[in-house]
Amino acid sequence: MYVSVSRLRVQQPSVAALMRAFRQRSGLVDTVDGFIDLQVWRSDRDPEEIWMVSRWRERSCFTAYMKSADHARSHDRIPQSLSDAICLERLEHLHSFEVAAE
Amino acid sequence: MYVSVSRLRVQQPSVAALMRAFRQRSGLVDTVDGFIDLQVWRSDRDPEEIWMVSRWRERSCFTAYMKSADHARSHDRIPQSLSDAICLERLEHLHSFEVAAE
Repeated sequence: MYVSVSRLRVQQPSVAALMRAFRQRSGLVDTVDGFIDLQVWRSDRDPEEIWMVSRWRERSCFTAYMKSADHARSHDRIPQSLSDAICLERLEHLHSFEVAAE
Repeated sequence: MYVSVSRLRVQQPSVAALMRAFRQRSGLVDTVDGFIDLQVWRSDRDPEEIWMVSRWRERSCFTAYMKSADHARSHDRIPQSLSDAICLERLEHLHSFEVAAE
């Protein structure tokens, strides 16, 4: 299993907008080969720290999706103001992992 | 849903020992009320960066487990040398999250 984590710093008004966008997401990824699930985690200690965590059968499925038209279409649906807020406030680059045991 | 993440920095020989200990874990947590799953994630970019991720129905289940005799017993089984290696190389304290959307 493969995991991708995006750590974002998102100011309070943008958190609400991000949750709205997430709830109204196109769901294009849900049927992509190798996709398992996607969760939004919000830190206990810092409610402006948001992690988006997606799990995949294997790394190649994730990288294929990142290059796909579906991924581009999904991101095109994000309102520009929200997209700008997230880009500006990015905490770190993407983390990615192999699940070594479970 | 509630998530607890421990980020550890573990040198190569200790990674193997950690995996061994994990595979031989007592499994006491598996039947604890509210426990969902536990995974060990290993960073793509830095194979000495290990995240232990446990998911729970809600925060109170996690905190109850952390105070329990089962948790103490599980940790007592970790070999002292491994325990020392992990403590010394801890990357950060625990992160914890509410799952805000999925």
